[in-house]
Amino acid sequence: MTQQTTTTTADNGVNVTALLGAREALSSAPEAARFRWRASSEWQHGTHNRASVDGFYGLGAEHKHRQSFQFDTDHPEVFASEDRGATPVEMVLVGLAGCLSAGVAAVAQNRNIQLRSVKATLEAGMDLRGILGIDANVRNGFDGIKVHYEIDADATPEQIAALVAQSQKRSAVFDILTNPTDVHVTVSKV
Amino acid sequence: MTQQTTTTTADNGVNVTALLGAREALSSAPEAARFRWRASSEWQHGTHNRASVDGFYGLGAEHKHRQSFQFDTDHPEVFASEDRGATPVEMVLVGLAGCLSAGVAAVAQNRNIQLRSVKATLEAGMDLRGILGIDANVRNGFDGIKVHYEIDADATPEQIAALVAQSQKRSAVFDILTNPTDVHVTVSKV
Repeated sequence: MTQQTTTTTADNGVNVTALLGAREALSSAPEAARFRWRASSEWQHGTHNRASVDGFYGLGAEHKHRQSFQFDTDHPEVFASEDRGATPVEMVLVGLAGCLSAGVAAVAQNRNIQLRSVKATLEAGMDLRGILGIDANVRNGFDGIKVHYEIDADATPEQIAALVAQSQKRSAVFDILTNPTDVHVTVSKV
Repeated sequence: MTQQTTTTTADNGVNVTALLGAREALSSAPEAARFRWRASSEWQHGTHNRASVDGFYGLGAEHKHRQSFQFDTDHPEVFASEDRGATPVEMVLVGLAGCLSAGVAAVAQNRNIQLRSVKATLEAGMDLRGILGIDANVRNGFDGIKVHYEIDADATPEQIAALVAQSQKRSAVFDILTNPTDVHVTVSKV
């Protein structure tokens, strides 16, 4: 008597074998795990700024992205600006969406769950009395961020919720937002 | 006897009069100061995600950006990904650069200092043993961010340093990074 089983293998486009290999390799080579991420920027006019992301350091060497990525930021017209790009705070939300969603795909791959669609909506409250210096008790940044995922996948609602929970647990940007980071700023006159 | 004085007026393209007017107006209308910034995103393939920034709420009404801004994020090839965009953590640096630089321009305008160029380089360290789950004592996010400004302006080095210090003090993204923010994530299955 033979038993036939059909094993479907999820393909979300994430190379989990390589990631697990990296985990193995970096466990015994902690120096290689030290990355340095970079951006540079040049002020354009008014509140309009243009940033470039070109390369980074990691695995003991310098790396170039496949291309230079450029991003414009600006303030909107209701702040008497020209709205030539997303606002800087919206870019932070873009980073959070990208980090959590990549994590969902990686975790789903590792758990052999086929994803069909992963959509996120993000909203962050901010009381402008902070940045305008009206009330010193109001913080400059967000008073909180809400993220909602709608996921279509071959999995139960519980399994889908667990994907997002695991992604949060391992997300760099989620950690950057929920915990404090030291920012050291220096200036020189040209 | 007459005395002739030449008063030069800086023009950095920031409408400071409007910003000071907004501060005045929002001081007596705190409800209008409550903004909600938004982004939405759709997973593409692997670790590649595409976010859109379209509109926001503030001054008691919904607002649309002049156009929809789209941003791709991805992981780099050294993580066995396709590098179809900047990494999510680099987007956070882009947001920080945009916020501090817009602030420098606004403060310079308010202090009648003409800017000629404002360049920033940003670098953030990150130990990958965090996100890879190798060492629970290593955080997922940045271990610190260094920002260096090179500014060419009609001002002394001390005045230029003061511009950057004041921008930090009023920056939304600087506050978001240096202080914790609550991030609440929910999920639904489609």
